Amino acid sequence: MVKAYAALSATSPLAPFAIERRAPATEDVVIAIHHCGVCHTDIHLTRNDWGTSIYPMVPGHEITGVVTEVGARVTRFRVGDRVGVGCYVDSCTTGEVRDPDREHYQPGVVMTYNARVEGADHPTHGGYSESIVVKEGYVVSIPDALPLDAAAPLLCAGITLYSPLRHWKAGPGKRVAIVGMGGLGHVGVKLAHAMGAHVTVLSQTLAKREDAQRMGADAYHATRDPETFERLAGRFDLVLNTVSGDLDWNAYLNLLATDGALVLLGMPEQPVTVNPFLLVPHRRSLSGSWMGSMRETQEMLDFCGKHGITAEIEAIAIERIGEAYERIVKSDVRYRFVIDMATLADGAR
Amino acid sequence: MVKAYAALSATSPLAPFAIERRAPATEDVVIAIHHCGVCHTDIHLTRNDWGTSIYPMVPGHEITGVVTEVGARVTRFRVGDRVGVGCYVDSCTTGEVRDPDREHYQPGVVMTYNARVEGADHPTHGGYSESIVVKEGYVVSIPDALPLDAAAPLLCAGITLYSPLRHWKAGPGKRVAIVGMGGLGHVGVKLAHAMGAHVTVLSQTLAKREDAQRMGADAYHATRDPETFERLAGRFDLVLNTVSGDLDWNAYLNLLATDGALVLLGMPEQPVTVNPFLLVPHRRSLSGSWMGSMRETQEMLDFCGKHGITAEIEAIAIERIGEAYERIVKSDVRYRFVIDMATLADGAR
Repeated sequence: MVKAYAALSATSPLAPFAIERRAPATEDVVIAIHHCGVCHTDIHLTRNDWGTSIYPMVPGHEITGVVTEVGARVTRFRVGDRVGVGCYVDSCTTGEVRDPDREHYQPGVVMTYNARVEGADHPTHGGYSESIVVKEGYVVSIPDALPLDAAAPLLCAGITLYSPLRHWKAGPGKRVAIVGMGGLGHVGVKLAHAMGAHVTVLSQTLAKREDAQRMGADAYHATRDPETFERLAGRFDLVLNTVSGDLDWNAYLNLLATDGALVLLGMPEQPVTVNPFLLVPHRRSLSGSWMGSMRETQEMLDFCGKHGITAEIEAIAIERIGEAYERIVKSDVRYRFVIDMATLADGAR
Repeated sequence: MVKAYAALSATSPLAPFAIERRAPATEDVVIAIHHCGVCHTDIHLTRNDWGTSIYPMVPGHEITGVVTEVGARVTRFRVGDRVGVGCYVDSCTTGEVRDPDREHYQPGVVMTYNARVEGADHPTHGGYSESIVVKEGYVVSIPDALPLDAAAPLLCAGITLYSPLRHWKAGPGKRVAIVGMGGLGHVGVKLAHAMGAHVTVLSQTLAKREDAQRMGADAYHATRDPETFERLAGRFDLVLNTVSGDLDWNAYLNLLATDGALVLLGMPEQPVTVNPFLLVPHRRSLSGSWMGSMRETQEMLDFCGKHGITAEIEAIAIERIGEAYERIVKSDVRYRFVIDMATLADGAR
């Protein structure tokens, strides 16, 4: 049995729970989990906000740890390697066209937790646990330069920003705005800055301006100030929206230059209403992005290793997870909680 | 004085009217207009549907004709050349970044008609007239292979489809859907087919299927059949929407493959409501496009010359323009009306 924390229903608090992990197959890697980041998705799913939850649920998809065992056919990892696991642990290999760079958009993708797997008597269980068993192809290496705790959020928050920044070609000469200076946004600032883009943060207030400047932001504007939207009209090549709450999308579309893209990284709860006059005469687009391929996730980690990029974290003991959820909902964290899994040894069973 | 047809108000029918054209400056080309296509925009603007109309208005931006005079500094055209004029006759040359490939998206663009020009006592007047005077840089050559009548609609309908097909990289291996089989759509079918894409038409009924197949469509589906939207889910890399009426956008977004784009070429009258779950997990985009640069317009005409592509037209005398408008509104034209400007000689003054 493996120690874990699980939600037993949409209304019960996370609590100690024992799970089973499969015996490693020849292509599997067994990982002792050292740290797991706390993502807003964990809150949505434990509370069944999207109606898709399966209980008992062990959340967590920002996993770092150390390899303790490898299957006979594993070639890329050895016992003792520092590794990570992100949002998914398998993907469709039977599609019409295999495209490793877009595997995360294919229907067969298997999420790290809360996913049903054929033949298994329980859903996938995530990183709020002592260990995990994952196919080699869905494990990434953590560069030596990055500590396992502050690197953990890169596995979701990092790749969620890195992938669209690369896809929409952020770099020198490009003006990028990051909407929301939270767990996702602050990593986006660091990544976009390291890519050479001109980076602007759009946040409700100026409260986090100094932090953002330290992380590489070139400009910072409060969205509560209506003048912000006049002053910045037509300015950006790329606006990445990390805020899942409801915004006035048209106000943000109007900040785009010709050919600019507004990209949703979270799921707004309401449908998005768009004025076509803001799109057509400027060839602007409204788009969305999530996760990144495994290949891209490794590329992102190597990039972060080279540039010394990690998340800004607040480490917590796992018994404080309920309190952490409350604080995330109130945006009261700078900038990501990471569970120290050593604390699980005493707390569970 | 130059003979023309004009609308004197939003409610008065188009009628004979005399206009003045400027004396040609050194960089100007004087063109005897032979044909002018009739675009749905002409109807919207003569009727002031968008609240931006200036009267008296001489519509028309699908102009073909022959050069009768050139200014001293004109180098690309000579008297007798077969030429065309499209949607705009000048553009901003003072912008922060001059980008000839995106001049048509810049604020300084001067539309061929219904645009105010500094220092002029009347708005620009379009192609429902005997002649026009245009700066050399906004005149294109009509390839010898193309007749002036059937080539006229290429100047708006043609470039409106060509530009997004190129921008979103239609070609071999790409699945393109054209929504609406009208004046724009039928040219889009021919262009996308000539580019090597797999072309599907989505039209309300199957009435124009044989026409479309003759023009190069590989598939044709009726949008009134709900099964169409189930059968084609996730199929297309690019959906070009030529219908300006209100559609269920989410149904069309759901037809896109990963990274697919739904591109609006007309202006829907109502805001567009989008379900973000159709965008984010597939990196789909909703976008818009209009016109094309002068460089791209010439490229399009050369492409059409090489592939023998023109619009399917119904030639009319200018005194039948009112009737033509009525039939366009009822979608009763296969596929574009083109005014034979020789008929203006008798009809006007």
